[in-house]
Amino acid sequence: MEMSETQIHILVNALMSACGFVVCYNIIPKFKTMFINAHLFGIDMSKRDKRQIPESQGMICGAIFLVIMFLFIPVPFYKHILTDNSEKSFPHHEYIEYIAALLSICCMIFLGFADDVLELKWRHKLFLPTMASLPLLMVYFVNFDSTVIIVPKPLRFYFGHDVNLGILYYVYMGMLAVFCTNAINILSGVNGLETGQSLIIALSVLIFNFMELNGCCREAHVFSIYFILPYTAVCLAIFIHNWYPADVFVGDTFCYFSGMTFAVVAILGHFSKTMLLFFIPQVFNFIYSVPQLFKMVPCPRHRLPKYDPKSDKVEMSKTTFKYRNLNILGKLSVTVFRMLYLLEVKEGVGEDNQYMECNNMTLINLVLKFCGPLHEKTLVTLLLTFQILCSFLAFGIRYQLSKVFYDY
Amino acid sequence: MEMSETQIHILVNALMSACGFVVCYNIIPKFKTMFINAHLFGIDMSKRDKRQIPESQGMICGAIFLVIMFLFIPVPFYKHILTDNSEKSFPHHEYIEYIAALLSICCMIFLGFADDVLELKWRHKLFLPTMASLPLLMVYFVNFDSTVIIVPKPLRFYFGHDVNLGILYYVYMGMLAVFCTNAINILSGVNGLETGQSLIIALSVLIFNFMELNGCCREAHVFSIYFILPYTAVCLAIFIHNWYPADVFVGDTFCYFSGMTFAVVAILGHFSKTMLLFFIPQVFNFIYSVPQLFKMVPCPRHRLPKYDPKSDKVEMSKTTFKYRNLNILGKLSVTVFRMLYLLEVKEGVGEDNQYMECNNMTLINLVLKFCGPLHEKTLVTLLLTFQILCSFLAFGIRYQLSKVFYDY
Repeated sequence: MEMSETQIHILVNALMSACGFVVCYNIIPKFKTMFINAHLFGIDMSKRDKRQIPESQGMICGAIFLVIMFLFIPVPFYKHILTDNSEKSFPHHEYIEYIAALLSICCMIFLGFADDVLELKWRHKLFLPTMASLPLLMVYFVNFDSTVIIVPKPLRFYFGHDVNLGILYYVYMGMLAVFCTNAINILSGVNGLETGQSLIIALSVLIFNFMELNGCCREAHVFSIYFILPYTAVCLAIFIHNWYPADVFVGDTFCYFSGMTFAVVAILGHFSKTMLLFFIPQVFNFIYSVPQLFKMVPCPRHRLPKYDPKSDKVEMSKTTFKYRNLNILGKLSVTVFRMLYLLEVKEGVGEDNQYMECNNMTLINLVLKFCGPLHEKTLVTLLLTFQILCSFLAFGIRYQLSKVFYDY
Repeated sequence: MEMSETQIHILVNALMSACGFVVCYNIIPKFKTMFINAHLFGIDMSKRDKRQIPESQGMICGAIFLVIMFLFIPVPFYKHILTDNSEKSFPHHEYIEYIAALLSICCMIFLGFADDVLELKWRHKLFLPTMASLPLLMVYFVNFDSTVIIVPKPLRFYFGHDVNLGILYYVYMGMLAVFCTNAINILSGVNGLETGQSLIIALSVLIFNFMELNGCCREAHVFSIYFILPYTAVCLAIFIHNWYPADVFVGDTFCYFSGMTFAVVAILGHFSKTMLLFFIPQVFNFIYSVPQLFKMVPCPRHRLPKYDPKSDKVEMSKTTFKYRNLNILGKLSVTVFRMLYLLEVKEGVGEDNQYMECNNMTLINLVLKFCGPLHEKTLVTLLLTFQILCSFLAFGIRYQLSKVFYDY
């Protein structure tokens, strides 16, 4: 069987990614002292020994990812480069997708690293990703500008077969970039969790892309593979170092880099809905966190699980407040979450027994609520298993349930 | 007189740049504590009071520059966006120049900031700019691929009217990017010098671009103006804070950001030779520094002028070595520089009178050699005056002397 051109390109990409993995895996330990000297380190709160662990190592991943991509990009265009370089024949509209995607990703790596070093404010964290996704959206606009969504069957009675969202579609895509970058960042705090979940999402996207290679949007999925293969390589390399017991922390740099990479391929690959399906645990964690993120319920500085050095296990961390001091939304969310068994509430604690105590609203604490105190490694294994199960669910929804709502 | 479309675009760009200036000027002092808390500060060695001065503030300039550009880019394309968004009519080949240029600049800002925080090694500093200029060179390749240079008249007897440099031309452009980013970095160490020289170069480029607006390569110069106007704005903002006595230091971030911006417009604007003319002081300083940079002559960690707190003046800093221990190139360079009055040499100093002492080989020390100890403010004024005079010289060469060598 002869290989098609695309297969050869994917193979070259895979080989470069493999080299990237080796470089990334070997280089991370070497940069350790450099980061610690630069005061970029943290102490692991859930360990007995309090050694300095280098932070924001995602920056190394990001830099290696960029180098792989810079070297790879000429490959899919080599025919145009070698045979005919007159301006007209070169597929500028394809090439620009690569460059704009890398620009958005590079901006986010820079922003993530700046955040790690300077501890930026929330307004910067929302403002800058929005800016960074502008060139991407403009490329989407000039290359596709398809803002029509197909309405699910049960709703067609009201909206018709399709709806043109127009500018709203761009707002949605801009928000997707902001969401992806922050969603991974929020579901973190246990060794190997940020990297593990990103790795599972990346692998799911890869499987999805390969399944769709013979479908209608072949080009889009090839584009996605070109980005996700190198990403998976550097992600795996740092995952090994970040796995329990962690030798490195990945920092906001990694989360921003990962989120933007996913957003970029989802937007330019036209599968933002499917991408969101792979983000089910992150979406759940985000919704579950909303009351604390938006200060309806008091939010301590850290919501990490509490470490018990005696048993070497972690347990739920809690927040304490006066119920009657909450605003209406706070009261409502506590009541609803409690009814849904999502919250362990203790009333009448603290001074004068007037305080209420409940677990912090994160997926990590929720798992601990159901399973009781766990060893950190067990906890992260459970969380990653949940992520994998959700990916299966996502494929099920994408390929089975969607038949009910759409005609494929 | 009605304004042409291009004039309106330039006006919009200028207005956005003005806003950028105001934001940048006001925001820099506000980030001061954030940088100091992140251990990104330095002590001014040439001042009596040893207060902490925030470092790598060029990062703020770079971020604001990127935001201005992201917001501006749709402007020159608004007609295509509003009237007809079919894929064919959109000038992808023009749009890609903006995106690729910003990608290279963004990469360098990231690298510069990483260098400030982590203090990278020399090999990283050469490797990464080369990588970052790859997408740019590829755009040059597909959009122009003109690697023919016109031979100066006196040499035509040997080489003919023009020579096609082919791949060498790309090597030259890649090296231009590396040179520009490092050249500004090497000519530094006095309050206001990095920012001052960059500002003068930027203004010279602007003047040159406006002079050429009615020439043959109008588009290229408009492109350059779109980038250099916002650059000048943020550069002026930080220059004011960085002027003697400096409230902020600009860091490698600023030098890399500046160098890459100049390289980008020179490459895509086809005026790399003229750009090098504006870099005369930097080129001189680089050549003068070569013996120390390449360790032919011992190079102390800092080559800053020496501060005398009594007189509040700075004087030449010196390096000491045994002449007979130098290699042949070291001996040669000391001898030649001495003959050209570029080096103040004292023989028979130190232990056993066997050592030789000379000033460190930087333009700054050379000025102090000729003028004697100076107040820091006088020194930087002299250096910037020299930069301005060199710009006049550059214009003279570009518009007068070049007539002797080329037919215009």
